[in-house]
Amino acid sequence: MSDLKIIPINPKALDLPSGTASFEERRAILRKELSDKIPRSRWLDEKVVSNAPKDVTAIIGESGLLTEEEIAITEKYDAPTLVKQMIEGKLTSVDVTTAFCKRAVIAHQLTGCLVDYFEEEALEAALKADQHLKQTGKPLGPLHGLPISVKDHMPLKGHPASTGFLSTREEKSKEDCLLISILRKAGAIFYVKTNQPQAIMHLECTSFMFRTLNPFNTTLSAGGSTGGEAALIALRGSILGLGTDIGGSIRGPSAFCGIWGFKPSSQIVPLTGMPVGVLSAPISIACCGGPMTVSLEGINYFMKVILDAKPELQDSQLLRWNWPTSFVNASPKKLRVGFVLNDGHITPQPPVTNALLWARELLDKAKDKIELVPYTPYNVAEGNKLLHSLYYPTGYTELRKALKDGGEPEYSLTTNTLRETREKPLDAFEIARKNADLQDFRVKFVEHFNKFDLDVILAPCFVGPACSHDTAFYWNYTSIWNIMDWPGCVFPTPIRATGKEKYTNEEQAKEMSLESSRVVELWNKGDFEGAPVNLQLIARRHYDNELIEALHVIQGILSS
Amino acid sequence: MSDLKIIPINPKALDLPSGTASFEERRAILRKELSDKIPRSRWLDEKVVSNAPKDVTAIIGESGLLTEEEIAITEKYDAPTLVKQMIEGKLTSVDVTTAFCKRAVIAHQLTGCLVDYFEEEALEAALKADQHLKQTGKPLGPLHGLPISVKDHMPLKGHPASTGFLSTREEKSKEDCLLISILRKAGAIFYVKTNQPQAIMHLECTSFMFRTLNPFNTTLSAGGSTGGEAALIALRGSILGLGTDIGGSIRGPSAFCGIWGFKPSSQIVPLTGMPVGVLSAPISIACCGGPMTVSLEGINYFMKVILDAKPELQDSQLLRWNWPTSFVNASPKKLRVGFVLNDGHITPQPPVTNALLWARELLDKAKDKIELVPYTPYNVAEGNKLLHSLYYPTGYTELRKALKDGGEPEYSLTTNTLRETREKPLDAFEIARKNADLQDFRVKFVEHFNKFDLDVILAPCFVGPACSHDTAFYWNYTSIWNIMDWPGCVFPTPIRATGKEKYTNEEQAKEMSLESSRVVELWNKGDFEGAPVNLQLIARRHYDNELIEALHVIQGILSS
Repeated sequence: MSDLKIIPINPKALDLPSGTASFEERRAILRKELSDKIPRSRWLDEKVVSNAPKDVTAIIGESGLLTEEEIAITEKYDAPTLVKQMIEGKLTSVDVTTAFCKRAVIAHQLTGCLVDYFEEEALEAALKADQHLKQTGKPLGPLHGLPISVKDHMPLKGHPASTGFLSTREEKSKEDCLLISILRKAGAIFYVKTNQPQAIMHLECTSFMFRTLNPFNTTLSAGGSTGGEAALIALRGSILGLGTDIGGSIRGPSAFCGIWGFKPSSQIVPLTGMPVGVLSAPISIACCGGPMTVSLEGINYFMKVILDAKPELQDSQLLRWNWPTSFVNASPKKLRVGFVLNDGHITPQPPVTNALLWARELLDKAKDKIELVPYTPYNVAEGNKLLHSLYYPTGYTELRKALKDGGEPEYSLTTNTLRETREKPLDAFEIARKNADLQDFRVKFVEHFNKFDLDVILAPCFVGPACSHDTAFYWNYTSIWNIMDWPGCVFPTPIRATGKEKYTNEEQAKEMSLESSRVVELWNKGDFEGAPVNLQLIARRHYDNELIEALHVIQGILSS
Repeated sequence: MSDLKIIPINPKALDLPSGTASFEERRAILRKELSDKIPRSRWLDEKVVSNAPKDVTAIIGESGLLTEEEIAITEKYDAPTLVKQMIEGKLTSVDVTTAFCKRAVIAHQLTGCLVDYFEEEALEAALKADQHLKQTGKPLGPLHGLPISVKDHMPLKGHPASTGFLSTREEKSKEDCLLISILRKAGAIFYVKTNQPQAIMHLECTSFMFRTLNPFNTTLSAGGSTGGEAALIALRGSILGLGTDIGGSIRGPSAFCGIWGFKPSSQIVPLTGMPVGVLSAPISIACCGGPMTVSLEGINYFMKVILDAKPELQDSQLLRWNWPTSFVNASPKKLRVGFVLNDGHITPQPPVTNALLWARELLDKAKDKIELVPYTPYNVAEGNKLLHSLYYPTGYTELRKALKDGGEPEYSLTTNTLRETREKPLDAFEIARKNADLQDFRVKFVEHFNKFDLDVILAPCFVGPACSHDTAFYWNYTSIWNIMDWPGCVFPTPIRATGKEKYTNEEQAKEMSLESSRVVELWNKGDFEGAPVNLQLIARRHYDNELIEALHVIQGILSS
């Protein structure tokens, strides 16, 4: 039996609205259960956790809990290069898995990023990988021995999953979903499940378990819905994780935490076997799966592994897709890049503008490869309103029942997500009419886009860098690409917010729209010091391969 | 002013249920208007029409209305070879268009296949094509000067369209839909619009204007919904026409009339700009556009023209698709062909079985190229029930209102189509649940299919050859591929029904299902003499190119 003590957690990660007594009891049990799975040897000193500075990124290295080798394993590689080390016998999967297990639970104590942890099972799988390699001389597959982190709602055999409510948390998934099963066959090791917000529909990450904090400034959100992954990967407790995105849930948190995140076009990465839960949005709007990781090469490698497995032969609703991107034939012609300083709806906060200007300056010097073209997407405000009205065609009754069933308080961002949702379900006439509006919007969006003759679009990821807790109201910079189902990839820049930046024209920003003026207020009220700033590259629907090729070219220029 | 006489029409094509007095009046006006557009010189002798034999295919040649050259133009070519003749200056578009105009209206008098006719406009466009070629030495495009026939519901600028009800007939479409506009830019000439059934949802072709008759046996249906095209093309009043298919509407009529018809996977041929009307099925089930024509090469050529135009750049919901099929590298490996003698739900009528056995015998002789594998698709009965329950998510209220608004009688096959439809619309919960059932069905279907390791499937097109009028109740052999969204192409065989064929085991056929026993009854009651029999080749979703390649190989064997 375990004792009553539970693992130290940053108090801000526990700062959540209260539910009924039975909800609080259940929450306490879940936290205790997780804590009991984590060996005492991985616990930080309680004082270190409770007195942590806003920026917690240095604590892991200073904690003394990781060996030098473990620090090297977790910091020196991206997914493909780490797999290569293991396949070449330079590292064992047991050592690699141990290092990421240790680092993940330290990351969790600082940011509240995990909801489940299973070191024993992971080490057993890692040992088998090592033995297989030793005995056969062959790797298990292209992900041989690599620990991969998994967002809570994705079914992973033998582990609980939830659709964002305590009442939907099932004891144990009976089977892997298709995505997990492909990764497992490719040799991946599973060791953690990560936090996601209530209803899995915030651009932050506050679940019934934890609030996930931004490791660069814990007064800021890690972003969401795939926020647990983002904080974990930013702290190198993982170098490859799985996200889903229907409004920005891969790209938002990746941008907030300064990592790489890719939302492909829908039906490329399989969501087959993932529960829809109360989220019946896929009637009109497609959810997309994709990787969150520490390099462009990691994204490329992940996509190749998934698509080489030909998931469309298991689920014929998936697209037939090849992933030949190898960066070898990257972009022989000059790229026409649409440059979005603002989307005409909300002026981004100053650090985002600074990152855009930084990129423009560098790209302008590479005129042989890049032509920047000022571009504003078509009617972002209308598109977003339509999108939000389609997230819950079933109305809010079932969602609020799921909350009530668990005695769970409705978080303010859930209320915000439901702002265009009525109580009753839409009927088929209403859905058909909205689908027609959607089609109409998409055709007009493309008509406007076609005038610019662009290959890709360079744009903000969000209205600012990471936001203060409970203020991620505006999804426009990511969600416009969900309504279009266009692929988008966010990538880090060297820009960090100081918090002291000024708008070059605050009045103009305020006048753009009510929402834009509120974003100015949020900037003036918040503490953004240290927040990373990412940018986003977008391409037409199904130009996913070209997008990654183009990003390779752009990244080459920006990092030179 | 025109006189009161109207063009002779086979009386069976006018044998339709009666509506209100105002409906009958409007119907008479529409028939008269069409008649007035057709020059007297194109009219058959009234006695020839009213005394026509069951098989009307010989009448056109014997009518004396076509010159020998016009007979050659309309009979000797398929779409690509006829275009070639014009591009090489061996034929003019004016001559070609004149020939097809003349032949189309004769076909109409025998089968009731047209709803609109615009010779003058067509000849004007044809003259422009000829002049352009003469002046520039260059063709207008890959369809230079070729007359193409168009199903009524497709918007063609300046001409009426309807969604299958008299009350939805609009005076004139303001714009071409995307498909038409691509064809027009490629040099096509438009000269007729063709008949479609009430609600565009029968597997026969009885509209508010005409009942389209099968040219090989007018006691049989031409099939539907794209039945006007099928009868017209079978009589060579067109060699390339446009269809749509959500349950068999391209493949059924093509099979009934012995021509080639291809239903691709959805979102490949653009339906952008086509009205949905009361048919809100696309909430869950995709409609598909495709060609109906006289050769496999015609299908291939059409697909190449459409996809070379990159319609996905106009409507980003369309798939990015290449059509490199040139039959050059056709199938280097041995094809594994699933052979469907019956689908486990309904045993086909004897001539269909005979066609399958004929094909099997020939294919078995080509064991170096083909391996036939007995195959029965997964649970066709369940799939079809689910499909029918998803055709009208909005319920039948709007449809019956459209009938009532026009005083139009509800045809018996419309009632049959609505058999799984309730009055009230489904709500979003019900749709989400049905979508989940659909996904579940599809995954199980694929799981079962995967066990056979097949490249393509050779199967019946319908429960029999063309059916007696008002008896096309069973769509299972086409619609199962709609629920899966798999591509299917029907192609003619030399088999013709004599009407005297017997079931090899009638008792077994009756015992298979209630529906199967009814199909036996229909066989025993009907007169099927002369009906052509087609077969269908099917491939996995998005294996459209491979399907056409495989059909090229199979066709090579079957026709040698």
